Amino acid sequence: MASSSSYQFGTALRDIRATAPLIHNIANLVVTNVTANALLALGASPAMVENAEEVAEIAAIAGAVVINLGTISSSWAAAMRLAAASAQQAGTPWMLDPVAVGALGYRTRLAVELLEAHPAVIRGNASEIMALAGQSAGGKGVDSLAASDAAIDAAKDLAHRYATVVTVSGAIDYVTDGRRLAGIGNGHPIMSRVTGMGCTASALTGAYLAVLDDPFDAAVQAMATMGVAGDIVMANGGAKIGPGSFQTAFLDALYHLDGAMIAALVKLT
Amino acid sequence: MASSSSYQFGTALRDIRATAPLIHNIANLVVTNVTANALLALGASPAMVENAEEVAEIAAIAGAVVINLGTISSSWAAAMRLAAASAQQAGTPWMLDPVAVGALGYRTRLAVELLEAHPAVIRGNASEIMALAGQSAGGKGVDSLAASDAAIDAAKDLAHRYATVVTVSGAIDYVTDGRRLAGIGNGHPIMSRVTGMGCTASALTGAYLAVLDDPFDAAVQAMATMGVAGDIVMANGGAKIGPGSFQTAFLDALYHLDGAMIAALVKLT
Amino acid sequence: MASSSSYQFGTALRDIRATAPLIHNIANLVVTNVTANALLALGASPAMVENAEEVAEIAAIAGAVVINLGTISSSWAAAMRLAAASAQQAGTPWMLDPVAVGALGYRTRLAVELLEAHPAVIRGNASEIMALAGQSAGGKGVDSLAASDAAIDAAKDLAHRYATVVTVSGAIDYVTDGRRLAGIGNGHPIMSRVTGMGCTASALTGAYLAVLDDPFDAAVQAMATMGVAGDIVMANGGAKIGPGSFQTAFLDALYHLDGAMIAALVKLT
Repeated sequence: MASSSSYQFGTALRDIRATAPLIHNIANLVVTNVTANALLALGASPAMVENAEEVAEIAAIAGAVVINLGTISSSWAAAMRLAAASAQQAGTPWMLDPVAVGALGYRTRLAVELLEAHPAVIRGNASEIMALAGQSAGGKGVDSLAASDAAIDAAKDLAHRYATVVTVSGAIDYVTDGRRLAGIGNGHPIMSRVTGMGCTASALTGAYLAVLDDPFDAAVQAMATMGVAGDIVMANGGAKIGPGSFQTAFLDALYHLDGAMIAALVKLT
Repeated sequence: MASSSSYQFGTALRDIRATAPLIHNIANLVVTNVTANALLALGASPAMVENAEEVAEIAAIAGAVVINLGTISSSWAAAMRLAAASAQQAGTPWMLDPVAVGALGYRTRLAVELLEAHPAVIRGNASEIMALAGQSAGGKGVDSLAASDAAIDAAKDLAHRYATVVTVSGAIDYVTDGRRLAGIGNGHPIMSRVTGMGCTASALTGAYLAVLDDPFDAAVQAMATMGVAGDIVMANGGAKIGPGSFQTAFLDALYHLDGAMIAALVKLT
Repeated sequence: MASSSSYQFGTALRDIRATAPLIHNIANLVVTNVTANALLALGASPAMVENAEEVAEIAAIAGAVVINLGTISSSWAAAMRLAAASAQQAGTPWMLDPVAVGALGYRTRLAVELLEAHPAVIRGNASEIMALAGQSAGGKGVDSLAASDAAIDAAKDLAHRYATVVTVSGAIDYVTDGRRLAGIGNGHPIMSRVTGMGCTASALTGAYLAVLDDPFDAAVQAMATMGVAGDIVMANGGAKIGPGSFQTAFLDALYHLDGAMIAALVKLT
C-alpha cells in the first residue's frame, strides 16, 4: 500500500494548469458536456471529437486520449478503433472506460478488442472490471452490483495480462498495476446519484496521464483529485445539498483545488 | 376527476428508491444528461442506450422503456422501432414522447408508426398530442401554441384508439386513459424556459411505470412529482431564481422529495 | 468605432421576448443542451435539429439558423449543407461557427465550402477566423493560441470577400462587416473555462439576427449581451465563483437581463 508522501500532488496539477494539455475524448452522449467542463475546470484543454474522419488526426497530437464506451454504434466503434490505433502508433497514452461492459454483449466484445491497442489505464466499476477480466459479476446497465474490493483480483489479473494499470471505482477506489495497489477512500455516496462521475474520473485520469510518466501515479492522483473535490463539496454543502448543487459545486471545487489541499485531505490506504 | 387520496404517492416513490428500476431511455442529444440525472436524483437507474446494436437487448431486461423523438435520423429511428418491438414482446411497459410531432413531417410519420407497438403512456404538449390524434394544432418547433385543455378531447380520442394513457403537459397537466381524467395544477411558467422539462416528465413517468401496474396511476404520480418539485424550488428560490438555478435546485428537490410532500402539495382536479 | 448610443439594445431584446423567434441550431454534442438553455433564457425558441431528414424543412421556417461545426461526421456535414442551402433559398439569415477550423483538415474544408451559401455572420476565436481567411495561426483543438486583435485584418478580409459580418471572440470581442469595426470589452477570463461559451455567443447572435435587419448590429448586440451577462455574474459572485456556479448564474443573468442594463454596462470601443 502507498502512503500520501509517495505522490507529488502539487507538481502534476501545476503542470496541467501550466501546459493545459490537449485531452482528446471520445466521450458519450450523456456526459460529453460534463467531462469537457471538468477538464476545463481542472486546467486541461479538452477536445471532444468522435467522428471517424478526424479521430486519428487529433489522437496523434493530443497529450492523452480517453475512450469511453458509453455511447457506441458501428460508426462510434469504428472511430474508437481508429483513435486507439493512432494513439498507440504515436505513443500517446490512452485510457479505456468500459461503460456497461458485461451488461451488454456488443460493447463487451468491442472492449476486449480495444485492449489489444495497449491502454495505459483502464477505469471502471467492479462489475465492468470483473466482466473485462472474464469473470461474471453481473451489472445493471451502467451501475455495479458488486463492491470495489470484490474486483481487486480481477483488476490485478487484467493489469498483468495487458501490462496496464487498472482503476476500480467504488466506495474505495483501487488502483493497481498488478504489483502495486493503492486505495483512495475519499468521496461520497451522492456521487453515484450524479451521472457521469465515473466518466469524469476517466477524463481526469487522461489529464494526469498527459503530464506524468507513470500511469499508476496518474491514476492515483486522478482518483485523489475526484475524491477530495467531492469531500470539499460535501463539507461546504451540508445536508441541503442534492445531486444538482453537487454537480455545480464539484466543478467549482476542481477549479479552486490545489496540490496542498489534495495532499492534506486524501485518504490513501 | 380524481382526488389526492386515490393515489399512494409514498408507496411508489419508496419502491423506486428501494429497487432502483433500470429505465432504458432513447433520449435525445439535448436532454440525455438532464433526464439521466433526474432519474438518478429520483432513485431510478437510467440506461441511455440508442444504438441499434444494443437497444433490443436492454429494452427486454429494463423495468420500463422511454422513447423520445427529440433526436431522430434514419439510424435513431431504426433503434426506436427495435426498442419498441422488443419492449412489446418482453412485456416491458414503454412510453412515447412525441417531441415536435406535427411541426415536422418525418417524425410525425414515425410516431404514428410506433403507436402500433402499444405504448403504455404517451406524453406531449397540446400541439404534439393534437397532431398525433390527427388534428391540426400547429406547433413552433418543440413549443406548443395551444393550451393543454384544448387537447383534452384529442387525448381521450388517442387513449381510446390505442388503449393507452395520454398525458398533456401545460399550465395544467392532464392525464387520461379515455375514461378517467386527472388534472395536476402544480408547476411554474419558468419550467418552459428550461430545456428538457417535458422530456424529464416522460423519463419520470418511465420510473413510475416500472413500479406501478396501472399506467394511469404512474402518469399521474409522475406529473405530480414534477409539479411539486417545481413548486418547492420556486418556494425556496424567490424572485432571484432563473432557469439556471432552477435546473440545479430541481434535481436537489427530486432527491429530497418524499411521498408525504407530494401528497400535501399536489393540486389535483 | 461605434458608440453605445448607436445601438437600440432594449428594442431588439424586447422583440426577442415578444416574438420568441424560432432559432434552428445544428449545434454539437458538447453544447446542445447549453445553447438551447441560453436561447430559452434569453427568450427565443430553440429547435435543435441536425438530422438530414428534417433540417431543410425547419431551416426554411426558422427566424435564423445557427450552424456549429463542433461535431461533424459525414452525416452531420450533409445536414449542414442542406440546412445552409435551405436557409439561403428561403432568405433565412444563417450564421457559421467554425469550431476548431484550422486545427483539423476535414472541417476546415467543410467550412470553406459552406461559405458559398452566404452566412450573415461568422463567429469564431482568432485561430479559427485566421484559418478561415487562409492565414495559418495555429489552434490547439478548440482553443485559440492567438489574441483576438491579431485576427482583425483576417476578419475584415473575410467580411469583404464573402459580404458577411465576422465576429472574433476574445478578451475583446471584435465585430466587423469589412467597413465598420466594433470592439466589446466585457466578459471575464473564467468564460474560457466553461465549455460552450463561444457556441452560446453564436446561438445568441442567431436570436438577434431573427429580429434585426442589420447583421452587424445583431452581432454587436449578441456579444454585448454575452459580455454584460458575464460581468453581472462575476459582480454578484465574487471570488468564490467557479466554472460550475458561473454556468448556472449565467443562464439566470440572461433571463433577468434587460436593454437598460446592457446599455449601461457595455464597454464599446
